[in-house]
Amino acid sequence: MKPTQEKYAVTIDEIEAAAERLHGRAHRTPLISCKAISDLANRDLLIKAESFQKAGAFKFRGATNAVMQLDEASARNGVVTHSSGNHAQALALAAQRQGIPANVVMPSNAKAIKKKAVESYGGMITLCEPTLQAREDTAAKVMQQTGGTFIHPYNDARVIAGQGTCGLEILEQAGSDPVDVVVVPVGGGGLLSGIALAMAARSPSTRVVAAEPLGADDAARSMQAGQLIEQINPNTIADGLLTSLGSLTWPIIRDHVQQVVTVSDEAIISAMRLVWERAKIIIEPSSAVAIAAVLDPVFQSEVEGQRVVAVVTGGNVDLAALPF
Amino acid sequence: MKPTQEKYAVTIDEIEAAAERLHGRAHRTPLISCKAISDLANRDLLIKAESFQKAGAFKFRGATNAVMQLDEASARNGVVTHSSGNHAQALALAAQRQGIPANVVMPSNAKAIKKKAVESYGGMITLCEPTLQAREDTAAKVMQQTGGTFIHPYNDARVIAGQGTCGLEILEQAGSDPVDVVVVPVGGGGLLSGIALAMAARSPSTRVVAAEPLGADDAARSMQAGQLIEQINPNTIADGLLTSLGSLTWPIIRDHVQQVVTVSDEAIISAMRLVWERAKIIIEPSSAVAIAAVLDPVFQSEVEGQRVVAVVTGGNVDLAALPF
Repeated sequence: MKPTQEKYAVTIDEIEAAAERLHGRAHRTPLISCKAISDLANRDLLIKAESFQKAGAFKFRGATNAVMQLDEASARNGVVTHSSGNHAQALALAAQRQGIPANVVMPSNAKAIKKKAVESYGGMITLCEPTLQAREDTAAKVMQQTGGTFIHPYNDARVIAGQGTCGLEILEQAGSDPVDVVVVPVGGGGLLSGIALAMAARSPSTRVVAAEPLGADDAARSMQAGQLIEQINPNTIADGLLTSLGSLTWPIIRDHVQQVVTVSDEAIISAMRLVWERAKIIIEPSSAVAIAAVLDPVFQSEVEGQRVVAVVTGGNVDLAALPF
Repeated sequence: MKPTQEKYAVTIDEIEAAAERLHGRAHRTPLISCKAISDLANRDLLIKAESFQKAGAFKFRGATNAVMQLDEASARNGVVTHSSGNHAQALALAAQRQGIPANVVMPSNAKAIKKKAVESYGGMITLCEPTLQAREDTAAKVMQQTGGTFIHPYNDARVIAGQGTCGLEILEQAGSDPVDVVVVPVGGGGLLSGIALAMAARSPSTRVVAAEPLGADDAARSMQAGQLIEQINPNTIADGLLTSLGSLTWPIIRDHVQQVVTVSDEAIISAMRLVWERAKIIIEPSSAVAIAAVLDPVFQSEVEGQRVVAVVTGGNVDLAALPF
């Protein structure tokens, strides 16, 4: 028997409330069919293109949902996070749209293109040494100085609820035909847990499959062990999926994700190129993990269901450093 | 006073009939808003993304409309064209979908990736010397051998009518707010003339602006001279726009296009990169010409209207040979 939702950090009602909040603020990204890739996958493959989301990734959903729930006094002091990735950009833009400040702690070796993106959305950057300890210490200092609220990239109930709205949209856009399988890349698990909760509540027959790089396979190992195992020394081109699952995302994933499919970096790069060439969408390597999973022999032999939605999570790519 | 439509090769009724024919066969491509590029353009810019059309370009519309009008005996013998570009792929796919053969004459120096694409859609390729004379002679020979019908890439009423359906879609998708300006890349003028006819009939207040590379500016020179001037020795990265206007497309363009904006290859490459980076859509250089035009100082100073639709014509790019 599956545990009831009450024990999780987030409920379906909170995801529904997030959807209300995001209405007109976040893009309703398209659900795209691509015959060429469907043929290769031997399934009816639909791509949920969060690469078209504001700031170029699904992260804008959770960031906006979090920022909008700050009380007036907190909002005045703004938000703080540490990230060198899509969450930093998303939070900066979400804060800008709400007219509040965003302070982002980034490692000193973060790429210029990432810093520029955060600044373009009005985010204020504090640089620190490139270690987790330095990031956390610096973020704590910035919070002390500004009184800002820390918004974690995934281990935050408001963020998980925001990402879950992507799952509700998939069901609405898929129409009356059932979605047999939804495939979601997993890093910290914010998007995966949000979508898993949405499916459990609104489409319990849909199988939720996580897609993970072999070089950062903590979700696969955690599922196998039945307990949260942290990711040490990740090594993959999918730079959005390096982190470990969180204390809030893990229980949801443990109970509501049916399978984890791991894929090699070679398969990720090949899937990324395939989507660029055939679906004509710019996606980043972390997104391609979902497509690589659908094309993987393990998926082909073990996952049942004809109509598959793969979530393409973001499109923020440095064109000067393509892997092909 | 503008001449009536009766004098042109195509009527609005034929464009409407083409739309009926294409329904369920061609994609209804999305009309996409991109805030970042809108801000740069100082207009509400919408992108009509024909890069998501089947076979990766708007050409599938005209090709399908032509193929579907063949009588049974002609259809059996299939279709013939000479092209090294998107029309070749589109015609091959359109013919394949109708279950008839397509013979494509291509120059011997055509890129492997182009030949592969035609073959992937079931097209049969005949190679010839890379001259216009050799292409025409070889196509004539293939027609004699197969009894196939020649489908010109743009100087064909059925093709123009098919491309015009893109204009009808723009108006439907734009909703109740008027489209002030539509910007269309021009090579042979099939798409431009089709859209111009659609606008003249269904939204006469919409300004139709052609976007053209400086290195193949026969439309600009023809408009200035008031007569069709052929393009000699074109030189531009926009390899879909090298050809001259045709006898059928020119009179429509002359009467229903309000302006031609020419742009440099530098501006084209920069616009292409901008769309990749900010709109996350794979577009080819010929498509980027429309975006470059909207961002051009001439456009900014001379073209009136706030709500602008730029037609992005195709997304068939060789990822191994990017201009950036």
